[in-house]
Amino acid sequence: MTAVATDRPGRLMAAEIAEQPVVWRRLLAEGGAAGIDDAAALIRGRRPRAVLFVARGTSDHAALYAKYLVEIRHGLPAGLVSPSTMTAYGARPDLQDVLMIGISQSGGSPDLVRSLEVARAQGALTVAVTNDRASALARAAHAHVDVLAGPERSVAATKSYTAQLLALYLLLERVREVDGRAAAAPLPDLGDALLARRGEVTELAQRYRFAQRMLTTARGYSYPTAREAALKLMETSYVSAQAFSGADLLHGPLALVDPQVPVFAVVADGVGGAAMGDVLPRLAERNADVCCVGHRGAVAGAAVGFTLPEGAPEELSPLLEILPFQLLALDVAVGRGGDPDAPRGLSKITETL
Amino acid sequence: MTAVATDRPGRLMAAEIAEQPVVWRRLLAEGGAAGIDDAAALIRGRRPRAVLFVARGTSDHAALYAKYLVEIRHGLPAGLVSPSTMTAYGARPDLQDVLMIGISQSGGSPDLVRSLEVARAQGALTVAVTNDRASALARAAHAHVDVLAGPERSVAATKSYTAQLLALYLLLERVREVDGRAAAAPLPDLGDALLARRGEVTELAQRYRFAQRMLTTARGYSYPTAREAALKLMETSYVSAQAFSGADLLHGPLALVDPQVPVFAVVADGVGGAAMGDVLPRLAERNADVCCVGHRGAVAGAAVGFTLPEGAPEELSPLLEILPFQLLALDVAVGRGGDPDAPRGLSKITETL
Repeated sequence: MTAVATDRPGRLMAAEIAEQPVVWRRLLAEGGAAGIDDAAALIRGRRPRAVLFVARGTSDHAALYAKYLVEIRHGLPAGLVSPSTMTAYGARPDLQDVLMIGISQSGGSPDLVRSLEVARAQGALTVAVTNDRASALARAAHAHVDVLAGPERSVAATKSYTAQLLALYLLLERVREVDGRAAAAPLPDLGDALLARRGEVTELAQRYRFAQRMLTTARGYSYPTAREAALKLMETSYVSAQAFSGADLLHGPLALVDPQVPVFAVVADGVGGAAMGDVLPRLAERNADVCCVGHRGAVAGAAVGFTLPEGAPEELSPLLEILPFQLLALDVAVGRGGDPDAPRGLSKITETL
Repeated sequence: MTAVATDRPGRLMAAEIAEQPVVWRRLLAEGGAAGIDDAAALIRGRRPRAVLFVARGTSDHAALYAKYLVEIRHGLPAGLVSPSTMTAYGARPDLQDVLMIGISQSGGSPDLVRSLEVARAQGALTVAVTNDRASALARAAHAHVDVLAGPERSVAATKSYTAQLLALYLLLERVREVDGRAAAAPLPDLGDALLARRGEVTELAQRYRFAQRMLTTARGYSYPTAREAALKLMETSYVSAQAFSGADLLHGPLALVDPQVPVFAVVADGVGGAAMGDVLPRLAERNADVCCVGHRGAVAGAAVGFTLPEGAPEELSPLLEILPFQLLALDVAVGRGGDPDAPRGLSKITETL
């Protein structure tokens, strides 16, 4: 699919952002039939000893989220594969007892397909998570989970990202014989309520209209949000946005921070948000300009912020946290005269070998 | 150790950069006795099925390098642990048959110590790679490898980084019963020759004197170089420097690239450098201002560049590749009136929990 020039810049991205609660409802209603039940049964049967993920771009942030789920809730070692080791370098690792999950919106990236093929030949159980059940990645894997996001036409992925998060959550909960739909049930309504607060983001976008550099930071389950927020801002608004885990920020990049480099801190209500307690005072010492996207208490302590709705458990908070950043990226891009539906230099499917 | 205010800005960093070939000679001569032989024997005896690394900041880039070695040369799945899963979230993964390697210059970060303690209690074989054999991390592990870099006083880590790379290379080769000292033998002389070309870097530093944003990119074994180069530039010169694998760059961040955002491409002679063949033309399409740090042929095709010396195998090239970036970070920082020995907001040991 090629990027479509649109009469109104960002029209596709705006529509796809708004569509997310609908996508989540669909996945909660039909996800089992779309492959989650079968894939989970297959994984349970094989009892993997380790889980590897292979993905790129936005999908890599969904992989990072799932890595936290596996490490914390499954008690299994997990890793993100560097695809080049199996493609360019021809590595043939022993992957008996390993589950490898490939994640891609299109399911069309040749390097991911090849990585899953090699992993399968090396003994891994392979699962593809894509938005296209007819894709090469879906065909290469033992099992396929369809994220049911519907065709995504904007180059900047939005609805496919949160659909990946939810599909991975439901899949991994199902593997440990928990029906994740109960915990996830409030999400669509919370998403609708959040997206209705459009004006708050429009105001934020005014504030960052001229920023050329930004930092995003978070810990735990919210760290993938910081990564994905930075990527959205980069690819739509051409901002040099850098994401750091709160802990890594203190190991060097903190020196970057001054009042001219705004910092977005994601502080969800939970363990990861609490772990940001070490980081925020260090940012204050550097007179950082901090925008807090977080729970009520955290935002109350910040000069600028966006309060996340209550009612989702910490591990599902990333679906909500990313929404204001998607809107912000859209608004900043359009405000600067860009078209986030067709960013310069990019096309919808990236073919890396 | 606290940062030392110095009469001449960057004096410590300059001295420690220059010292690297001496450190490598020491490690090649004494590394076996400094723990590499014992640790390798222990690992061989346990035959791990997977390798996890835990590290932060510069040491995390050494971990990423070692991850490539494990995936490509050992044929084992490997991953970088998110320390918060075991510290903040209290995850207790089943780590039988897993080797966990903790890497830290000081060996003093509480979260890394805790991660190694938990991993050990959960059945992992644990190895610490530090610059202080008396450190808490060294004591927490089954085996310790001393990188023998000598006291590092500059806040920006330089000699401890390449010492970590070399120690990890020698250790991992020894595990597969190869004496890596033969392949590494030419490195100290090549390093001395490269460091003698100081004037070339000083000229480059003039060129980037006013850049506020930079990108670094590479693939394969050189990708950790791109990451570490970006961190050095950030922490010493306060540049918003972002690193991407060449493949990931094409999945979104390419939109950032225009002639105002210089790109440093690391193109070593080997598989990773060859895989950059897809990336460089895409950068040219975007009229990127590319500085190529690479082999003779690659630099010949670039407007600006720094030619790496010949004579090191691809997997050892990262020790040489980072040197011009360390010098560049030093020169840009000093040129801008900063002191890279004491960057704002940072201290030598970062205590994250």
